Amino acid sequence: MANEEKRNHQRHGNPSNRPNFVFILADDLGYADLHCYGGRAPCSPNLDKLASQGLRFTNGYANSSVCSPSRMAIATGRYQHRIRGGFDEPIASASPALGLPPEHPTMASLLRDAGYATALVGKWHLGSLPWYGPLKSGYQEFFGHRTGAVDFFSHQGLHGHDLWEGDQEVVKEGYLTDLLTDRAVEFVRRQSAKQPFLLSLHYNAPHWPWETREDREESKRIGRRLAHLDGGSVRTYLEMIRLMDEGIGRVLAALDEIGARDDTLVVFTSDNGGERFSDGYPLMGKKMDLLEGGIRVPYIVRWPAKGLPAGTTDDRLAIGMDWTPTFLAAAGVSPHPAYPLDGIDLFGERVERNLYWRMVHRNQKAVRSGVWKYLSIDGAEFLFDLSRDERERANLRYREPEKFEELRRAYFEWDASMPPRPEDAAVALEYTPATMARSDG
Amino acid sequence: MANEEKRNHQRHGNPSNRPNFVFILADDLGYADLHCYGGRAPCSPNLDKLASQGLRFTNGYANSSVCSPSRMAIATGRYQHRIRGGFDEPIASASPALGLPPEHPTMASLLRDAGYATALVGKWHLGSLPWYGPLKSGYQEFFGHRTGAVDFFSHQGLHGHDLWEGDQEVVKEGYLTDLLTDRAVEFVRRQSAKQPFLLSLHYNAPHWPWETREDREESKRIGRRLAHLDGGSVRTYLEMIRLMDEGIGRVLAALDEIGARDDTLVVFTSDNGGERFSDGYPLMGKKMDLLEGGIRVPYIVRWPAKGLPAGTTDDRLAIGMDWTPTFLAAAGVSPHPAYPLDGIDLFGERVERNLYWRMVHRNQKAVRSGVWKYLSIDGAEFLFDLSRDERERANLRYREPEKFEELRRAYFEWDASMPPRPEDAAVALEYTPATMARSDG
Repeated sequence: MANEEKRNHQRHGNPSNRPNFVFILADDLGYADLHCYGGRAPCSPNLDKLASQGLRFTNGYANSSVCSPSRMAIATGRYQHRIRGGFDEPIASASPALGLPPEHPTMASLLRDAGYATALVGKWHLGSLPWYGPLKSGYQEFFGHRTGAVDFFSHQGLHGHDLWEGDQEVVKEGYLTDLLTDRAVEFVRRQSAKQPFLLSLHYNAPHWPWETREDREESKRIGRRLAHLDGGSVRTYLEMIRLMDEGIGRVLAALDEIGARDDTLVVFTSDNGGERFSDGYPLMGKKMDLLEGGIRVPYIVRWPAKGLPAGTTDDRLAIGMDWTPTFLAAAGVSPHPAYPLDGIDLFGERVERNLYWRMVHRNQKAVRSGVWKYLSIDGAEFLFDLSRDERERANLRYREPEKFEELRRAYFEWDASMPPRPEDAAVALEYTPATMARSDG
Repeated sequence: MANEEKRNHQRHGNPSNRPNFVFILADDLGYADLHCYGGRAPCSPNLDKLASQGLRFTNGYANSSVCSPSRMAIATGRYQHRIRGGFDEPIASASPALGLPPEHPTMASLLRDAGYATALVGKWHLGSLPWYGPLKSGYQEFFGHRTGAVDFFSHQGLHGHDLWEGDQEVVKEGYLTDLLTDRAVEFVRRQSAKQPFLLSLHYNAPHWPWETREDREESKRIGRRLAHLDGGSVRTYLEMIRLMDEGIGRVLAALDEIGARDDTLVVFTSDNGGERFSDGYPLMGKKMDLLEGGIRVPYIVRWPAKGLPAGTTDDRLAIGMDWTPTFLAAAGVSPHPAYPLDGIDLFGERVERNLYWRMVHRNQKAVRSGVWKYLSIDGAEFLFDLSRDERERANLRYREPEKFEELRRAYFEWDASMPPRPEDAAVALEYTPATMARSDG
């Protein structure tokens, strides 16, 4: 250990035993895109290395197969359906009805109240000003965008320019992934051991528009048609991942620099399954589906001080809303009693529990219970044994009728325990069978 | 070279310069399933080795994305639409209207008439007795099944027991892939240098029913429901490929044994794109689609005496109906003047030409022209640049309107040059959105 590193390490040696948190969220990255999750292209050297230094979960899920409901669950530690804004797939308009209510406790507000320095760098997508925003929900600082997608160069969102420093709009030059990385590195370097920190780094990559660092001209062509259907490629998609991975490498290096590596719990995950250029094999399905490819996501976790075994995998069932209870438990912070958590501490006792999903889009329902999965899409019902058939092609509904009924019943019991679906819950689809060439199989 | 091998080689040294042909056709194997085509599982050591000794085509296509039309084109060297039976997707019933007419010249009949020993081992699927059959279409011997699929153990087809020795039904014990391999090896060992030979080895693997060599019990469970929707897995699928690959290794070893390795053109390909457990990434689409994953297939070609460069790839456009002209040219045999070929000699001059597809199912149309592809599905039209976007996600129709119109016009000109679609052309789908959980993306 170099002298300066050693000094830094001492500076950050954490007497209170409260870890720092770096929570990195990719946008529309699929389960199998990263090389360490089976991806064929070496687009993720830093994340692959992170995985070799920590754990990879192989049954880590998002709470939804689309952006804002999934993020609502991560932020609150609860099923997204407990909040009106969690029903929209995704939140696509500015409305006082659609967002994360400022009074609702969050991962960030609970940690802030316990003395953490908190920052969101990147995407918010949980409601619009003046009603909603990261500064109202526990983050002490925010640099990033508020809506679901922005152009990587012009920083135009679907409804106008969308780049913010706190509640102030700011104009900056640069490729968004790099701007977010720069800010995250700067935040880490600014930290001292006096105070633990939560850095939520929510990259917009590899979400559309399909632009790499070299695609300034493509950005001009696309203009405001961010959800464009006439560009992109597998190569562009993989390069967008690589550029994010490069940024993550810089953030991890900054942790090393300040000597915070050991005492920092680093998590990397995605908000939902892959989009059109993603490789999910052997999983089926994409963003907007409750098939495994729509909801199963990478979970890479490193926390040296905790003694997590390096380079291993963990097959326990985990879901996005588990991160808040996991972080709170790690920090020794109690949840708010009036807002009981649905998630669990992923470093706690292994518990048997079912995971549930429901979506307005295509009237989808799903339960995961051990190796079993109940799935309903457009009224067609399925039972899969994921231990034998993680591709969900062999419907065991009639072979295992008791298991099918058991899971189906469990779904409707859970469903009844949740707030009902609002009549006006909206679905925003980027493409339809008429605009995208669909496969029959 | 061992003495016996040398003697055999001399025995098979071919004074007339007419090569032998071993044409191996897999059933529903996808473009990217084999390891040498990017498949992640090492399921194909013998085919990978064959590729390293020969050429891999990277733009090799099937004439259709479903079985019998694709085979009709391979057998005749012509667009399948020139024959009534080529329109059914696939041929699913016994009828005097549906099959390869015995008077139509074929790869096998033209080679037989030129002095070749010809055998079909495996699947026929080009029409039923008493009207149609391999012995009526140029094969001097036949061991295999006549319909589109049989159980690997009971050898029951969709309409009853379906295993034949010539025109005689035979009952045999064993896993079908192994029985076909045994017979192919036996055929090769029976050959002498006096006569060149064509061996068509049409494995049914990895087509459903989903059974490996260990799945005798599963075969009993499935019974006659061959197109079952409640079994199979990625593991089963890959093992079915591995068992076929093992058999191919034995056939190749038999060629070595008789000293025919150098003088034999070996081709391995598939009849159409992958089925539900196949991995096609980065291609989209499956069997029944005119997306690339439905029609692009592996082409592995080895022919030492021709001096083909080993371990290389060839990116020229190729399509199933090219095999007949390629074999005829290699054998110095002229096609029948009354049945002009639509395919070309793949070892001849590189020519610029368009490839065309049309399907009854979903009213699909496609043209490939250089890097460009026109695609129409259910009335929605697309233009793709496959050099940039082989995943066919970026519709360039409105960005390149002239190219779009050029290819569209070419399609309809070609279409008008073909026999029109018969009113009663049938489509047999194995699954629908109600029976298989479909992705939205």
